[in-house]
Amino acid sequence: MPRPSRWDDVVAAAAKVFSEKGFGGSSLEDVAREVGMLKGSLYNYISSKEDLLFAVVTPPAQRLLDQARELSETDLPASEKLRRLTRTHVEIIHEYFPYVNVYVHEIVGRQVSDEWSEMDREYLRLLEGILAEGEKQGLFAPGLPRRVAALSLVGALNWMTRWYRPGDPAAAQAIADQITDVFLSGLLSRH
Amino acid sequence: MPRPSRWDDVVAAAAKVFSEKGFGGSSLEDVAREVGMLKGSLYNYISSKEDLLFAVVTPPAQRLLDQARELSETDLPASEKLRRLTRTHVEIIHEYFPYVNVYVHEIVGRQVSDEWSEMDREYLRLLEGILAEGEKQGLFAPGLPRRVAALSLVGALNWMTRWYRPGDPAAAQAIADQITDVFLSGLLSRH
Repeated sequence: MPRPSRWDDVVAAAAKVFSEKGFGGSSLEDVAREVGMLKGSLYNYISSKEDLLFAVVTPPAQRLLDQARELSETDLPASEKLRRLTRTHVEIIHEYFPYVNVYVHEIVGRQVSDEWSEMDREYLRLLEGILAEGEKQGLFAPGLPRRVAALSLVGALNWMTRWYRPGDPAAAQAIADQITDVFLSGLLSRH
Repeated sequence: MPRPSRWDDVVAAAAKVFSEKGFGGSSLEDVAREVGMLKGSLYNYISSKEDLLFAVVTPPAQRLLDQARELSETDLPASEKLRRLTRTHVEIIHEYFPYVNVYVHEIVGRQVSDEWSEMDREYLRLLEGILAEGEKQGLFAPGLPRRVAALSLVGALNWMTRWYRPGDPAAAQAIADQITDVFLSGLLSRH
């Protein structure tokens, strides 16, 4: 089937280059070389390196937020919401690597713009909401440090971009469940 | 008292610039401007931008590893070792910010060299060792996913560089203890 444009290739090349060299250390020349285009041709697709950055990071970021919103609105117990959100987060790292690597490295918690900071805050609010719900349900311990717990889970998940390399999807899900178990049950023996 | 050299100022300026613009997006000109020197004068101190990077990140990285080694060799219960290691990690983020911000952003888990990768691995081994000890002591749950638990704690701690800004040292310690509590006790209610 003929491809109407090489947009997907351009974004994939940008994700690879930004992921390997960092956004600040990459040039449009690097991206053009990766996709096998002249630099001038890139301007048919984007008008700046920043445009490419946002093209790389928007799909995983938007999908994560959409799924977190959906999950928050279900009637599942808070512990199950947390397990599913963790799975979703890990699945997105798995499927969108290296896009999500660029997202984690360059965007999350780095105050690049009001819009992106608001996405960070909303994700955190949804997560803290699940923790508050779990406390109310008597499932979670009373008086949890919700903000720090939510930030710690986000940190543990995003940190996967430093040590996880996509292979078997079942392995990704096993890791997600191990992270959930650590956060739900803690390290201390329960007897 | 006269200062024999401006080495500390140069390294502090590099930490600030690399932390704000990323290592790849920074130039030696930026560092020279920050410290109020001509770029040429910087070459009295270092021979490349990489030299400056390692000058910035070595003090916090070395201190963290030294303290983790010391702590591992004590006879404290594993849960107390974990609490103290978490406090130390957070104290170093607090005291060496933005040096440690550069360390987390540019070095940890990024395979920049065999030497730095070995430092990552040793820290993780020490942490996993504490988890294994805790299991043996019956303090920690049997069959813990030690590797994932250790990586999650490291991730939660290093992620602080994205949301924590140094203020009151007592607040830093309170955050450290909240992180420890989340990892030791988990979110689920224990009754």
